[in-house]
Amino acid sequence: MTDSDADVLRFEPDAEGDPSKLAYTFGGFEPLVSVRPGTVVSTWTMDCFAGRVRSTADMVSEVCDPRFLNPQTGPFYVEGAEPGDTLAVHFRSITPRESRGVSSTVPLFGALTATPFTAMLHPALPERTWVYEIDTGAGVVRYDALDSPYQVDLPLDPMHGTVGVAPALGEVRSSLTPGSWGGNMDTPEMRTGTTCYLGVNVPGALFSLGDGHARQGEGETCGVAVECAMDTTLVIDLIKGGPPTPWPRMEDDAFIMTTGSTRPLEDAFRIAHTEMIRWVQQLTGLSDTDAYQFVTQTALTPIANVVDTNYTVVTKVAKRFLPDIPVMHDIHARWRRP
Amino acid sequence: MTDSDADVLRFEPDAEGDPSKLAYTFGGFEPLVSVRPGTVVSTWTMDCFAGRVRSTADMVSEVCDPRFLNPQTGPFYVEGAEPGDTLAVHFRSITPRESRGVSSTVPLFGALTATPFTAMLHPALPERTWVYEIDTGAGVVRYDALDSPYQVDLPLDPMHGTVGVAPALGEVRSSLTPGSWGGNMDTPEMRTGTTCYLGVNVPGALFSLGDGHARQGEGETCGVAVECAMDTTLVIDLIKGGPPTPWPRMEDDAFIMTTGSTRPLEDAFRIAHTEMIRWVQQLTGLSDTDAYQFVTQTALTPIANVVDTNYTVVTKVAKRFLPDIPVMHDIHARWRRP
Amino acid sequence: MTDSDADVLRFEPDAEGDPSKLAYTFGGFEPLVSVRPGTVVSTWTMDCFAGRVRSTADMVSEVCDPRFLNPQTGPFYVEGAEPGDTLAVHFRSITPRESRGVSSTVPLFGALTATPFTAMLHPALPERTWVYEIDTGAGVVRYDALDSPYQVDLPLDPMHGTVGVAPALGEVRSSLTPGSWGGNMDTPEMRTGTTCYLGVNVPGALFSLGDGHARQGEGETCGVAVECAMDTTLVIDLIKGGPPTPWPRMEDDAFIMTTGSTRPLEDAFRIAHTEMIRWVQQLTGLSDTDAYQFVTQTALTPIANVVDTNYTVVTKVAKRFLPDIPVMHDIHARWRRP
Amino acid sequence: MTDSDADVLRFEPDAEGDPSKLAYTFGGFEPLVSVRPGTVVSTWTMDCFAGRVRSTADMVSEVCDPRFLNPQTGPFYVEGAEPGDTLAVHFRSITPRESRGVSSTVPLFGALTATPFTAMLHPALPERTWVYEIDTGAGVVRYDALDSPYQVDLPLDPMHGTVGVAPALGEVRSSLTPGSWGGNMDTPEMRTGTTCYLGVNVPGALFSLGDGHARQGEGETCGVAVECAMDTTLVIDLIKGGPPTPWPRMEDDAFIMTTGSTRPLEDAFRIAHTEMIRWVQQLTGLSDTDAYQFVTQTALTPIANVVDTNYTVVTKVAKRFLPDIPVMHDIHARWRRP
Repeated sequence: MTDSDADVLRFEPDAEGDPSKLAYTFGGFEPLVSVRPGTVVSTWTMDCFAGRVRSTADMVSEVCDPRFLNPQTGPFYVEGAEPGDTLAVHFRSITPRESRGVSSTVPLFGALTATPFTAMLHPALPERTWVYEIDTGAGVVRYDALDSPYQVDLPLDPMHGTVGVAPALGEVRSSLTPGSWGGNMDTPEMRTGTTCYLGVNVPGALFSLGDGHARQGEGETCGVAVECAMDTTLVIDLIKGGPPTPWPRMEDDAFIMTTGSTRPLEDAFRIAHTEMIRWVQQLTGLSDTDAYQFVTQTALTPIANVVDTNYTVVTKVAKRFLPDIPVMHDIHARWRRP
Repeated sequence: MTDSDADVLRFEPDAEGDPSKLAYTFGGFEPLVSVRPGTVVSTWTMDCFAGRVRSTADMVSEVCDPRFLNPQTGPFYVEGAEPGDTLAVHFRSITPRESRGVSSTVPLFGALTATPFTAMLHPALPERTWVYEIDTGAGVVRYDALDSPYQVDLPLDPMHGTVGVAPALGEVRSSLTPGSWGGNMDTPEMRTGTTCYLGVNVPGALFSLGDGHARQGEGETCGVAVECAMDTTLVIDLIKGGPPTPWPRMEDDAFIMTTGSTRPLEDAFRIAHTEMIRWVQQLTGLSDTDAYQFVTQTALTPIANVVDTNYTVVTKVAKRFLPDIPVMHDIHARWRRP
Repeated sequence: MTDSDADVLRFEPDAEGDPSKLAYTFGGFEPLVSVRPGTVVSTWTMDCFAGRVRSTADMVSEVCDPRFLNPQTGPFYVEGAEPGDTLAVHFRSITPRESRGVSSTVPLFGALTATPFTAMLHPALPERTWVYEIDTGAGVVRYDALDSPYQVDLPLDPMHGTVGVAPALGEVRSSLTPGSWGGNMDTPEMRTGTTCYLGVNVPGALFSLGDGHARQGEGETCGVAVECAMDTTLVIDLIKGGPPTPWPRMEDDAFIMTTGSTRPLEDAFRIAHTEMIRWVQQLTGLSDTDAYQFVTQTALTPIANVVDTNYTVVTKVAKRFLPDIPVMHDIHARWRRP
Repeated sequence: MTDSDADVLRFEPDAEGDPSKLAYTFGGFEPLVSVRPGTVVSTWTMDCFAGRVRSTADMVSEVCDPRFLNPQTGPFYVEGAEPGDTLAVHFRSITPRESRGVSSTVPLFGALTATPFTAMLHPALPERTWVYEIDTGAGVVRYDALDSPYQVDLPLDPMHGTVGVAPALGEVRSSLTPGSWGGNMDTPEMRTGTTCYLGVNVPGALFSLGDGHARQGEGETCGVAVECAMDTTLVIDLIKGGPPTPWPRMEDDAFIMTTGSTRPLEDAFRIAHTEMIRWVQQLTGLSDTDAYQFVTQTALTPIANVVDTNYTVVTKVAKRFLPDIPVMHDIHARWRRP
């Protein structure tokens, strides 16, 4: 399937002016644009710092307003989306907008530091900022140590850390938090070529996205990836009715994937694995215990993040172990470009 | 480096007779054999059920004695090993001894069930046993559903779930538990071609191994992999002195790896990542915050198990991001056969 | 201090009509009434099931709509309240409105069952409903077993499970969840004679309350206390400026108390204890380590709940160990009736 | 019941000489003395630092050997004790041996600091030592701040932090760790007048005790209570057969109590509460759900410690809610002195 420029909806976020106009929550914001299912959208996202961290001298705690972290592009109102449906978002391309990304340590944020929730008596670790040169042609980002001459090129692997819809039960959740609505899952699997499935909780779904990463490790240990603004082309599609999607799922050419986001981390694991077992059962008709056994021997289980207000675990099963079984009405295959 | 048959020490575990003669703990058993560092050992291990589960009609709770689960081959006394040294165990080959492996659900054991520790009021899930045909020539194990005709071949990927030494502080720990001494880590990374590094806590280290898996998924969700007896050839070597190895590490041709085993799972993550940061610092001379940043962007973080009495997380960093830096005195490269 | 009827503001929740008109979130609802600091308010609250569970034949999963659980009375707009201020709510009386309370097991809810977060493969535990006769004169509630003739009178100890304000960062949170804004903390300390301190996050604070319990055990193990509608008289007061109150605090005649609400439970503990250490430092001028030591030897630490979407721990220090030190401008002493 | 001096077995630990001769593990040590069930034992215990911390200038990390922390008096071999039996230990008196107790912060140990398990990148908190004057006549210990003149008398409440038997499955566990065998539970409920019930795992039970505290708060937040040597008189008795005691239980004149010791803290809670539900069922014949409901409304749930290698939660139910029901063959009433 191809699409000419004429078929592509261009959406420009209003990022130049007042940051308070952008969306910092899932739920709680009026939709900015309405799209029909199957629309190809071309847009861009600000980095999680709203562009305010520009050099190794810029400290997050000094240049950023905590109320305006992780701005989202959207929300998009998806026509016809109703609670119980499943939104399908296919990432056709995710490309850094600039030739630099930034990372940092942020006081009392991250996996290996005291935080407001893992509350301790330690003073904060030192606050530092790193700048990564991004070479999209060579497909690398350059790690450049601050305190020694160590440099090394790492593979560019652009992704969106934050992708989600309005939550259920009338809740409004910060764009810093992941959960059943998606949000700040921070998984590197959310890259070009992946389709993300999100259960719809409110009419129109109210989808938004942001938090581009030029790359990240699994766990996002210090809490901050190689953050950058992104040019992104995505397809927003809809699966009406059918079995619900209680937690976000993903699919790429090789894997089906489930997620769980909560605390402690073993509960995030339990969610992701029960979701995978239920999905495998839907696909194969396996019994409860047969599906439990199948997933036990086939799952890959990379940790996504252990730094956000909820932690995220991903579970993957290779589609080659599920031969000739259509997944989610083949929606991924339909939108996947060769 | 090659070794003739003459150089190989054959060690035969006394598995035919009284199961109470085998080792079921790390620590607490007298060494059965003494080896010089650098010895190539050929041996074999029983499966975790001591061979008592033979068909889909054999239920673990009926055929196994809970005192005699997960028998270990060893302990090996390593000559010259002293507290503070590091044992290096290179797995040259791990091959199923038989053409079948077994898996099962065990009452109140596993990640998605109430257990004696995650104590609940639910009755146990149904107890079932699966048998997998192993085709070492084709390199596959066959999943065969019990309640429907679903069958699929999965890649054979033999490994040892349990590898360890005597613990510190005079403790003796069940072979069902992983920790700083190694033990039942249940990571699929412990395969042919991997070198495992274990800190020595007592004179002679008292190394043993067992719990062969023809394959497992990450997390070992139901608590039982494709269990089988293994023929294993390994090199037992020793690094005298040097920086200590507080938690087990691994190395293969592509990655250095650390482990953490505790509860909750986020603490296992924290151990594995702090260990990786300290290791990267030793290798590169990076400062604390630079190493924190480096690992944040480069780590892979597969979960090993969420089912044992402690949970295990593995952290991996690609050696290509650490170019031309010798790791652990190049001991892996020395023993690695092309 | 006394107050005549003329000084008491009567607020009648609109509970008779459409349940969708009541508040089910903290944040997200317009205030229904405005009060000046120091106002004595007389009002009442529905039970957490909105009165729909009336007999042992009423099952929560059949008679309740999950969107309309735990209705709150409010929100109250507190005049002059600004972010950074501290709301003080003193409970002058909490009295069951009816002569019966109810409790129940709810499928996949509670501490000793699989839940949507501690996701497992178990079917739900049996759903049951208990009815407790409440004798306010004798001060008892009667436990009456369903499956045997066992009966026993337990002390009546009325309290509010849910007390809170609008959260920070534009979030809107379900009334089933506790956190830094208060909410569903489910601590029996929130009884007659207690003053609760809540940090203000939005102009007017937007205070509401509900979820009356005739009594509960510490932990609220099955997830449901002895639930009943309550007649409540409270004083709503305000502390302008001063040190912030990041997590809810309480005070009664004998103790100062802090709370932490998150997962895992040890992090809730860590929050409550660091908050207590900081509070003790403000009161006494003790150094960091001296306050750490003081709290270590003096704290009582009852668990409040391990069943809600966040778990709550309370930490108490006796005021007799802090002699002659005014707490929170003596606001508790001022409103406390002899 | 009374006992003359002639009936009392005096046991003198060999604490004056080589500390390596004392017991630092549960399991792994030969019994030092054999007692018949019903024996009244008079003995004493060293403090957890083996007496090496004597003044505010003594830092634990400098004066103590980590291999010789928390020495235990025992093990006692209890004649006739077999696996499946229950040991009953009644504390008749626990009295500080000296007029001073000590507390301290220990690097990377405690609830509000990074530890080897909650591994972080923070440097250790400052190491300090406090000395408490103990006035047994007045029944107080004096808190004396190091950095300011703040002093306050706290109630003397002597207890044993560590009480246990040899573990199951051939394990040997450090005296710093609590678990199903008892060990370092650090609950203030283990005071004069309490009877502790411990399941027997090996012939003779191999009971030992230590870690006297002049008092502690619930949670033992900084990891160290008011530590002191104790003169203790206890009755060691035995319940043959009967329902097993999988986790330690306690009883005093007012309460029956269960314990759970593991991580995360919610799992310790789950153990303690399921144990209480099972115990209540044994005592009352209540059905599963009726007992779940009863405990939900009656339990008190103080946290014992969140600092040891496992965390401990205690659950208490008042005996007045279980009228006229004999507990554990009335063994507590029999040994309880008026």
